[in-house]
Parts: sequence; structure tokens; C-alpha cells
Amino acid sequence: MGEFDLIARYFRRPVRHAALGIGDDCALLQPAADSQMAISSDMLVQGRHFFADTDPFKLGHKALAVNLSDLAACAAKPLAFTLALALPQADAAWLAPFSQGLLALADAHGCELIGGDTTQGPLNICITVFGEVPVVSGRSQALLRSGAQAGDHLYVSGTLGDARLALDALLGKVALPADVLEMARARLEMPTPRVALGLALRGVASAAIDISDGLLGDLGHVLECSGAGATVAADTATKLVAASAYGIRAGGQFGLKFSQQQWRALALAGGDDYELLFTAPPQQRAAVLAAAQSSQTPVTQIGQIDAEPGLRLLDGQGQPLPNSYAAFDHFA
Amino acid sequence: MGEFDLIARYFRRPVRHAALGIGDDCALLQPAADSQMAISSDMLVQGRHFFADTDPFKLGHKALAVNLSDLAACAAKPLAFTLALALPQADAAWLAPFSQGLLALADAHGCELIGGDTTQGPLNICITVFGEVPVVSGRSQALLRSGAQAGDHLYVSGTLGDARLALDALLGKVALPADVLEMARARLEMPTPRVALGLALRGVASAAIDISDGLLGDLGHVLECSGAGATVAADTATKLVAASAYGIRAGGQFGLKFSQQQWRALALAGGDDYELLFTAPPQQRAAVLAAAQSSQTPVTQIGQIDAEPGLRLLDGQGQPLPNSYAAFDHFA
Repeated sequence: MGEFDLIARYFRRPVRHAALGIGDDCALLQPAADSQMAISSDMLVQGRHFFADTDPFKLGHKALAVNLSDLAACAAKPLAFTLALALPQADAAWLAPFSQGLLALADAHGCELIGGDTTQGPLNICITVFGEVPVVSGRSQALLRSGAQAGDHLYVSGTLGDARLALDALLGKVALPADVLEMARARLEMPTPRVALGLALRGVASAAIDISDGLLGDLGHVLECSGAGATVAADTATKLVAASAYGIRAGGQFGLKFSQQQWRALALAGGDDYELLFTAPPQQRAAVLAAAQSSQTPVTQIGQIDAEPGLRLLDGQGQPLPNSYAAFDHFA
Repeated sequence: MGEFDLIARYFRRPVRHAALGIGDDCALLQPAADSQMAISSDMLVQGRHFFADTDPFKLGHKALAVNLSDLAACAAKPLAFTLALALPQADAAWLAPFSQGLLALADAHGCELIGGDTTQGPLNICITVFGEVPVVSGRSQALLRSGAQAGDHLYVSGTLGDARLALDALLGKVALPADVLEMARARLEMPTPRVALGLALRGVASAAIDISDGLLGDLGHVLECSGAGATVAADTATKLVAASAYGIRAGGQFGLKFSQQQWRALALAGGDDYELLFTAPPQQRAAVLAAAQSSQTPVTQIGQIDAEPGLRLLDGQGQPLPNSYAAFDHFA
């Protein structure tokens, strides 16, 4: 199987929205009038972002999901993506399920593959995704990290920390019962990009980011970009670790006898969550809940934005907790 | 040096044209009204596209140049690009010159870095580039591979085969005198994207492609997309190997005693040329020459497009030559 066969067999399909798809020097997109193109790029490296034996269907899903998550955080509607792929060899047993997982998620979001590159090399998946954001009366509807204001409520979608729990289990650092591992592993390997929620938050949220490096690390980016501080109810966030319910329900009989500190660390600094962390003025509370409902995405308030810089963590009794949680850094 | 320091130190600069650059979940581009966005992506892998000891300044140049070359082939005006970079370690001695080479070429073309990703992993450089193509009276001005018509003249810009000659020399397959190696190596390591020529060919050329896999291989894509054939004057193309002039001038005293077949192979199937191969109707001949002059880019007619499918190679006496030249394929 040569390079062009590989593309034709696994990745080339008729384009529906793009002016021109795979097969020329460039793809062509014609954005709607009065819109901006939102662009994000993520590179996944074997041994760094995924294990060598990761199910290729799930890997195809995740490679696009982490990119769609960036569009969601900007309230951009997915349009198209490019895929650059370095492969050790052209292996049909890997390529077929990889492309199926990738294109199934793409189809679910109406986001079409319009071009890219294939080469021989250590396995590396680089996707660049394109979304559309309307510009209304000269104002972009994109949600940025920089829009948080003192007094805004701080919300997070979905659940936190389970992806990291699965990673720790796969690395042999913790033992998990089969059903907990299965649930957590689905969060690690098949994250759900919160595209519908992001779109529903246009004109409602004041700032947003997706959680990839850990809740507090990513919150730090919002605070830095917005020139603000925040207070976070650590134990409210900690209840969002789905696996923690197993420990509570079963009184620890499943071996999930983690300390409160361990659960907190998963929720606050786990990473790989691909949930939306966002802020909205208090008067938008009903609109936030309506956005959560219309997008069928759970949303929880976990704190608020303060004028005073810095991050304040409070426990369930409102007492200050030390913040010793570090965000993930590839070169730290 | 952490991931965010690395980006801030080497890659983040104030944006000039984009609505939003590096530092949020997405970058934002606002295309001009009545325009299409041309998009291309190329991935460069160490050991496959470049040697481990390649000068990082030149590598930065080349990584963007090969992408700009795709925009040139579509007659798109460069706007912006994203960079996804996997690095074994955050090494300032490599990053500083790499970013300088990259951004120097970006500045020369007014093409700004608006986002991307950095991660730890085997060295891999993935650039996605964005250009603008006007749509005039509902018709895109993009040059495509599919527009060649029987009777069109076939042209190529610049020189051919010297990049491959340098590669062969660096691999120890041929010995070159120092001045020839220096010239050829510059073609391999610092290719010139023919952006100005591509823009000047809007409304003049009927089809275009950039030569990355070798002249005949890339011509094959044009013929396939256009449903046409071609006749190529092999020895006219062969004279475009700049190094061949050294052999002729010096009577072979420099050791460039290649056979005619060897020179032909360099010109017709060398690869890594990043010249434009394009077609234009005979009545556009003066306009093609004017485009070459205005863009200060040499252009040579090397053949013509035929209604009859297939590729016919002719020697200097107009006699048929066998076509045994294979295009580069990463997985063949």
C-alpha cells in the first residue's frame, strides 16, 4: 500500500461543505460572510499522549476530540480539519480502525477531513481543526480566556479526574476494580468534546477554556489572561470525580480507599478532562443552566472570580486549603 | 524552561493581521469578504525529511517553505500558520536558530504564527498554513491541479534536481566539489517557495502543482486530475539542473562525470525542488513571461498537454525515451 492508496482507502471521502477537499496542493474553505475562522492544532505522540497498545479506533476518536474541545472552548462551530500522520508502517490493521474512530466523531460534528500529510516516522498524529464563529455588529462571538470579570461565577462541565485515575491505573500506580477502570478508561480514551455546550454559551459566558492540563492549571490561564483572581470550592470540584461515587457507595470495599487529598488531586490537577471551565456573570445563571440543559451537559458551579489576584482554595467548611497542585508541563 | 516559557521566548510575537494569535484555545482569522481560505499541512520528521545534524536555522526555513510552496501552487496569498512541534528536549541552542529561520521566512511573506502545540517526543515539525484566494464574480482564483487542457504549454519555474544531488552527496552516493555541494545544498536546505510567481499566475495559468516528489511524479497528479496526457522535452528539463552547468563548463574535471541518464534522473525524478509546474494556454505565453519577469522567477517551457492520456518523454532530437522514473512515496 503506497502513500496515495493509503489516503484514498482510509481518509478520502467526498466533501460536503468545503470548496475543495483532499487531493490538491491546498484545501479551500469559504467561510460565511461576517464570520471568523477559529483554528487550533494538537499533536499526539505515542508514549507521551497514548500507549503503544491503545485501541486505534479510540485513538482516532481522541485525536480529533481534543481538537474539537478547543473549538468548544471558543464557542466555534466545527467545520473541517487536516490530519498529518507519521506512521512507522502502512498497517491496514491499525489504519482501518483509526480512520473509523476519527471519521465517526468527525461525522457526528459535521467536521470534514479536507487535507493533510502522511509520512513514515515514529507514530505522531497532528490535527488542525477549523471552526466558525459569527461576528455580530462587528463583535466576535468567540469565548476567550480573557473575559472573566470579578463577581462572575465559575463553572465546570461534566466530571473531573477520572481520566487521570485511569492513567494512574494503567501505569500500575493504583489498582481499580474492573467496572471503575472501565468507566475511567472511557473518559481517558474517548473524551467527549463539549461542542454543543460551547455553542450554547455564546453570549452567556464571559470566558472559557478547556481542561487539558488540570483544572487549576487551566484556571490559572483564565486568571492570567483576565487579570483576575478566583475562589474555588475544592470539595465541590472533588465530588465531580465520577469514580469517587464508587468509594462512597461501597464504603471503600472496592479498594478505592483514597484519602481526601488524593481525590482532590484528581479533581483539581488530574488533566486530560476535556471539560469546559467557564465564567458567567451572576445574572446569567439561568441562561447557563438553560445552556446546560439544551446541550444535555451537566454543569456545576465550583467558585467565583475575584478582583483580588491569586487563587484561593476552600474546603467544605469554607476553610482555606494550600494550593500545591501543579499543571502538566511537557518540559517542566 | 517550561512549555509556556518556550512558546513565549521563541514563538510568541504581537499579531498584526490575525484577530487573535497565540495564547487562547483557538486563534481567530477573519478572511476578507469574497475570499476563500487555502489550507495546507506538511509534517517533517527527523531522519526522513532531514538529518539529525541539519542546521536548525535552515530547518526552520524549510519547514515553512514547503508549506508556502503549496500556497504558491494554488495562487494563494500567505496569511498565517500554526506550528506543532515535538521535541526530544527544550534545547535553547536548537530552538533559538530554528525559530529565527522560521520567523525570518514568515516575515518575508507577511505570514504570521498564530498558534500550535509543543510536546515532548521524537523531533517532528508539523506546520499548517493559511492563505487567501479571491473569489471574483463567484469564481475562485485558486490554481488547481485539474485545470490543464489539451494544447496548453507546460512550464516549470527555477531549477530542478539540485536538491536531490545534494541529498545523494550527503548520503555518500556521489562526491561533489565544495562549490557545487554548497550550491546544491542550499537548494536542499533553503528552498525558495515561489509565492510571487504563483500570485502572478492568477488568471494566466490553467493548472499548477509544486514539485516535491519529482517532476514526472507531480506532473502525473496534474494529468490524472485534468484527465489529460503530456509530452515532455526531457533534455530541456535536464538543462535546468544547475549543477549540470559545472560539468559542462569544466569538462568534467570536477568529477561531475554523470551520464546523460543520471542528469535526466535528477531533473525528472529528483524531488524536493519546490518549484512550480504549471500549464497555460498558448495565447497566455506573453502573460506567463510577464509573470516570470514581475516575480523575478525564471520560467522554462518543458512540454505541452495532450488530449491523449499518458506521458511521452522526448530526447533532444525529438526521439521517444522510456519513462522509468518513479515518484517518491513514503510507503512504497
